[in-house]
Formats: sequence, C-alpha cells, structure tokens
Amino acid sequence: MEQILVDMDGVLADVYSQFLQLEERETGIKQNVAALSGKTEPEAFRYYEQHVRSKDFFRKAPVISGSIEGLKYLNNKYKVIIVSAAMEFPHSLIEKHGWLGEFFPFISWKQIVFCGDKSSLMGDIMIDDHPKNLDFFHGRKLLFTQPHNIHLAREGYERVDSWQQLTGIL
Amino acid sequence: MEQILVDMDGVLADVYSQFLQLEERETGIKQNVAALSGKTEPEAFRYYEQHVRSKDFFRKAPVISGSIEGLKYLNNKYKVIIVSAAMEFPHSLIEKHGWLGEFFPFISWKQIVFCGDKSSLMGDIMIDDHPKNLDFFHGRKLLFTQPHNIHLAREGYERVDSWQQLTGIL
Repeated sequence: MEQILVDMDGVLADVYSQFLQLEERETGIKQNVAALSGKTEPEAFRYYEQHVRSKDFFRKAPVISGSIEGLKYLNNKYKVIIVSAAMEFPHSLIEKHGWLGEFFPFISWKQIVFCGDKSSLMGDIMIDDHPKNLDFFHGRKLLFTQPHNIHLAREGYERVDSWQQLTGIL
Repeated sequence: MEQILVDMDGVLADVYSQFLQLEERETGIKQNVAALSGKTEPEAFRYYEQHVRSKDFFRKAPVISGSIEGLKYLNNKYKVIIVSAAMEFPHSLIEKHGWLGEFFPFISWKQIVFCGDKSSLMGDIMIDDHPKNLDFFHGRKLLFTQPHNIHLAREGYERVDSWQQLTGIL
C-alpha cells in the first residue's frame, strides 16, 4: 500500500480563514483576499506571530471543505500519515492532537507525526501547501492551493485546488 | 553530514528509574532490577498504564548518565533528529518538549519529531532501546541496553550499553 503524507495547516485546517478573522478583529479592517495573493502569511497578516501563538488558534481552526470525506477516501486506499510542523509552537501540539481527534476520529495516533522539519519523512505521495516542504521529498508532490502559493509555478509538483480535485486524481 | 535518529525514553530519559520509583510508591515493594530483566515494561510494572498516563511522568524523568555530553558530541558531528513515540499519550507532547528544552537546550525545535510510529523516518543511523523501532529501519541500527531488552540477541543491530560506549563508536 502506498504511503501518503498529508499536511494539516492549509490542507486539512483552514488556518487562512482564522488569520483573516483574527486580523479583522485586531485591526477592524476586512482584508481583500485577492489583494493578499502571493504574500506569505507573515507578510499578509501584521499580527501573524500573535495569532499563531494565541491559545486555541490551532484547536478552533475550521475544517477545509471536503477534507473529512476526502481523507476518509484516502485512508481506505493508502497508508495515510498526517505530518504537521508543530514544534515551533509547543502549545499547538496538544491543540492539533485534539483537533484531529474531533474532526478526523478515523485517524489513529499511530498515523500522526508532529515535527519541526519535514525533510526526514518518507512516503510515496506528499500533499502540502508549502513548496519548501515538498522540495526535499522524493515521491509524488502535490501542492494544495492557498492564497500564499497561488502564483508559484515550479517544476516537479502538481497543483490541486480542492479536495474534490485531489480525490479525483488519487 | 550523516543523519542520526535518537530516541528519548530509554536513551535520553531514564524512564526505567521513574517506573521503579513510582511502582515502589504504589506497592511499597522495592523491586529487584535483575529479576525484571527481559520483561517488557508493562510486564515488569503492574501500574505501568497509570504511571505513563500520570501528569509529569515524562516532564520529571531523570536524564540518562552521559547523555547530555554524548548528545552534544553527536550534535557537532551528525545531523541529529530526536524521534519519540509520544502520540499515544497526548499529555506527554508538551512535557517532552519542555524536558528537552530544559536538559538539551542545544537541540532546536527543528530537530524534534514526535510520532505514533517510527517507520516513516529516514536516517543513516538510529539509536533506540526497542527493537520494534529498529526493525523497519534501513540504516545502521544501535540498540541501547535497558533491562527490558537485555536478553535480546537479534541480527542486524549493534548493542551499546552506555553513552560512553556510544560516543566511542560514533
């Protein structure tokens, strides 16, 4: 059975919506997502550091549309490993664990990896919204579209815009 | 630079001492370590589950003799990745993160991996006290001696009895 590494933030967890909402609460300004295209999250959100370090930021993230059904599908067809770069923000460890348990209870603790850097992980397929995580990977690379990566066109990975599209090709 | 995967419990953290101490507190009986040789930890310690699920079990573990200097040595010579199977006990995630920060502050968050199963990790060398973690590994396998593995003799791995011996061969 092929092994697929699935990212959390930006693939399962809609942290971008969280940023938009918290930033509006902080500044009183509703940002135009189109105008943020191509900016990294720290560039797009002035209070980025405050947001990611705030309690419950990762625990209360909305689920990306289609990801629950999509991950169930993948989980029946592949060996799924959830791989999240969580180590920089230690409070996120228990929040991410609880969030996965709430929304993806069919994922066992044996299938979860929290790391600092993803370059030590093996697999056949990797889905991530950050090219830096895909770059080192030796298998098939799928880039999940998010506003911050929308203008990137790099050789070696396939772009997918939604979970519907993802399950259509896998 | 070669990459070395270093286990926490039984290699850096002396959880065996923790088990002995907590078991004595629970039962009033001081166990003879020699008599426990070859028993798995859940076999050796009647209250194993209670111990590993108790608050601060992983945060208060003593450091294995020689491991701080030994890991510093390895960290200068290899790309060190700390790999700990922490996911079964979610409370352990923040405890292990804090414990590493206290005793091994020269290890960056980028060098830490907490997982359920270690079979997705790559590296050139792996040091672990559980053969089940070494079995899948493709590189050089080092078994760190603990009472529970003392009678095991399996082909394919080298046994090391101490951090002094470990740094002597690496």
